[in-house]
Amino acid sequence: MMLSSLRIDPARLVARIERLGSIGALEGGGVCRLALTPSEKLGRDHLVAEMTALGLEVAIDAIGNVFGTRKGRREGPAVLLGSHIDTVATGGLYDGALGVLAGLEVIAALNEASIATELPVTVAAFTNEEGARFAPDMLGSLVFVGGLGLEEALDTVSIDGKRLGDELAAIGYAGTGHGPKEIAAYFELHIEQGPILEDEKTEIGVVKGVQGISWTEITIRGRAAHAGTTPIRLRRDAGLAAARIAAGVGAFVREMGGDQVGTVGALTLSPNLVNVVAEKAVMTVDLRNPDEALLKAAEARLAALIETAAGEEGVTFETRSLARFAPVNFAPALVDQVEEIAQTLGLSTRRLFSGAGHDAQMIARIAPAAMIFVPSVNGISHNITEFTATADLANGANVLLQATLKQAMPTNGEEAR
Amino acid sequence: MMLSSLRIDPARLVARIERLGSIGALEGGGVCRLALTPSEKLGRDHLVAEMTALGLEVAIDAIGNVFGTRKGRREGPAVLLGSHIDTVATGGLYDGALGVLAGLEVIAALNEASIATELPVTVAAFTNEEGARFAPDMLGSLVFVGGLGLEEALDTVSIDGKRLGDELAAIGYAGTGHGPKEIAAYFELHIEQGPILEDEKTEIGVVKGVQGISWTEITIRGRAAHAGTTPIRLRRDAGLAAARIAAGVGAFVREMGGDQVGTVGALTLSPNLVNVVAEKAVMTVDLRNPDEALLKAAEARLAALIETAAGEEGVTFETRSLARFAPVNFAPALVDQVEEIAQTLGLSTRRLFSGAGHDAQMIARIAPAAMIFVPSVNGISHNITEFTATADLANGANVLLQATLKQAMPTNGEEAR
Repeated sequence: MMLSSLRIDPARLVARIERLGSIGALEGGGVCRLALTPSEKLGRDHLVAEMTALGLEVAIDAIGNVFGTRKGRREGPAVLLGSHIDTVATGGLYDGALGVLAGLEVIAALNEASIATELPVTVAAFTNEEGARFAPDMLGSLVFVGGLGLEEALDTVSIDGKRLGDELAAIGYAGTGHGPKEIAAYFELHIEQGPILEDEKTEIGVVKGVQGISWTEITIRGRAAHAGTTPIRLRRDAGLAAARIAAGVGAFVREMGGDQVGTVGALTLSPNLVNVVAEKAVMTVDLRNPDEALLKAAEARLAALIETAAGEEGVTFETRSLARFAPVNFAPALVDQVEEIAQTLGLSTRRLFSGAGHDAQMIARIAPAAMIFVPSVNGISHNITEFTATADLANGANVLLQATLKQAMPTNGEEAR
Repeated sequence: MMLSSLRIDPARLVARIERLGSIGALEGGGVCRLALTPSEKLGRDHLVAEMTALGLEVAIDAIGNVFGTRKGRREGPAVLLGSHIDTVATGGLYDGALGVLAGLEVIAALNEASIATELPVTVAAFTNEEGARFAPDMLGSLVFVGGLGLEEALDTVSIDGKRLGDELAAIGYAGTGHGPKEIAAYFELHIEQGPILEDEKTEIGVVKGVQGISWTEITIRGRAAHAGTTPIRLRRDAGLAAARIAAGVGAFVREMGGDQVGTVGALTLSPNLVNVVAEKAVMTVDLRNPDEALLKAAEARLAALIETAAGEEGVTFETRSLARFAPVNFAPALVDQVEEIAQTLGLSTRRLFSGAGHDAQMIARIAPAAMIFVPSVNGISHNITEFTATADLANGANVLLQATLKQAMPTNGEEAR
């Protein structure tokens, strides 16, 4: 057969997603599989059983990352396909699960066509990608690439006060195995979690990298005062200072244009009463840009904005960095390959940056990595209404399959042998 | 004696305030005498006992307003001195109580000097001025002046689900008496509840009237979206629209200047998360101005601001009026008299508008009314730390005493007979 005509089975892929989604399912839809909880253990057990059924050799490493390997004709670096199966508390069926389950679907397609790849193909599910229970997010892949020490990671304490290492041992996933020692290429198929592909009616997002992220919490302190009896000149209005900063972020982000985004998603006033000037405001600013220099420029504009607003309103402030990640660029050759494969499959493509963090950005530290995005209906994710149509899921999995073939059979021509 | 040299007893006035403040006292300071609760009943009982001890004829009307009258040498319109003794849930010792207790102190001074006034002098405590338990505020004085029907007022339901008429009967204050049928003048001594007098080191505030009040609640609906993955052009950011409105209120209020004030004291975002564009924002705007035309102009600017911000951010909105009162102007002759008396007493004065509502604005509908303000430390009120120094309390009460004499002895010269 022509390798390039090999396809995954869309119905089976959807069945895999629905089956995993039934584990930790929420009434009313969606799923809750917070990392290392009993429901996530059941998800892991199911994944291991599926890997075993597909003939994969399963290894669990010391941080609980799950690897299932299909041997190649020769020893050598693995082609790694991965993502995660943990979710946020009210998550959807696709975030993370798609990348892992499409990996299984790639294995199933290879098995059915009896294709012996030259290099091994490994499917991975990384521990605690969401960060909803343990900080930081992408913890399993970060440990895997050596970016965080194992002991430090195991000592991480969850939002419910549990030590990660204890929780890992309790569910039986403190392994002694390890993932591939060398990686030829890493591919992660993921839902976009944003509206761009749907808005532009594009089937495949070719991910150039991951935006840099800068989260700042600002606490503003003014003076509570009666809204009727206090003249403007005698006010120190923490709420007004906060509003000026939030409106200012909206303005400078538009002015910067390009890929710059900025969001004030959280803003709380105290005492939050109609007739009392706020004495305190706590707000967050989320700035993202794929270009580190531009992200720094945005941070500088924010700092100046806060200074000006606080000075003019006579309030004091403190800022605290909640998160700061530099942008990540994926391997250009791999990005090109993903694009070429998608176009060869007749799919419309668009290059974009990921606005969210993914395990791929950690793997990119040690190996060529790339991501494939498929549309998210209404751009919604981390929500029980998260949805991606079957055709889009299948398109993404087929790009993943062809990319796997290209990397796992590097000396292969078009014909199977 | 010279009537103009008559003074109240500062220590006794403070003792009166502390004694009433011990009823419903909160641990840690302050007081809770919500209208028609058992603790407010005890306050009323104490007030009635004090009135009786001073020889006043006590009458309770059908809405529970308490009147204590010292007869004049002739029948005729009464000089009415009043305020209220109900408080907010975490109130101070001065708001309301000062006006009533200074009234008693005026009576005590008249008694001690054996002064027979020509007109009767009545001290009043009006029911439910604060509006903290029953809406509307200033309910008792509103019913007294015929601005709200008795039956409708009695059918008012409290925030804790009780009918006002039932609560009034339960504490034994559903009376059959009535207040003065004619009023020569109404004076209300009150703490400023704002910072102007203290800021300007002024002893007496000569109140010209009460600002008009316009409260608007704005509910903005946008679309929740991932803060990293959603380009600015595809956002409908309810939080950004709200921030633009709040910052815009701050800007146009400054631009209007004069007595215009505007406050966004309450603002709540949903879901209020650092990395999610807000899908909903609910905010309040409090606009006040002593000039109705200017208040209307401010309302028009707010309406235009909301339209612009919502239009540009692609969000929808609804507005709801939470309160709207036109400004009230006190009787010019009475205002002049208060000012002249204070200056004659050697006190520094400043004319100002009340930013808060008071019973005086209701009485102003049927009789000449005026108010006397004394400084509030740090402008704080409706708070357990509310405080006014003894000298300021005494100054205010002495102005009240002299104003009472001027009105109650209209044909009198300087000398007592």
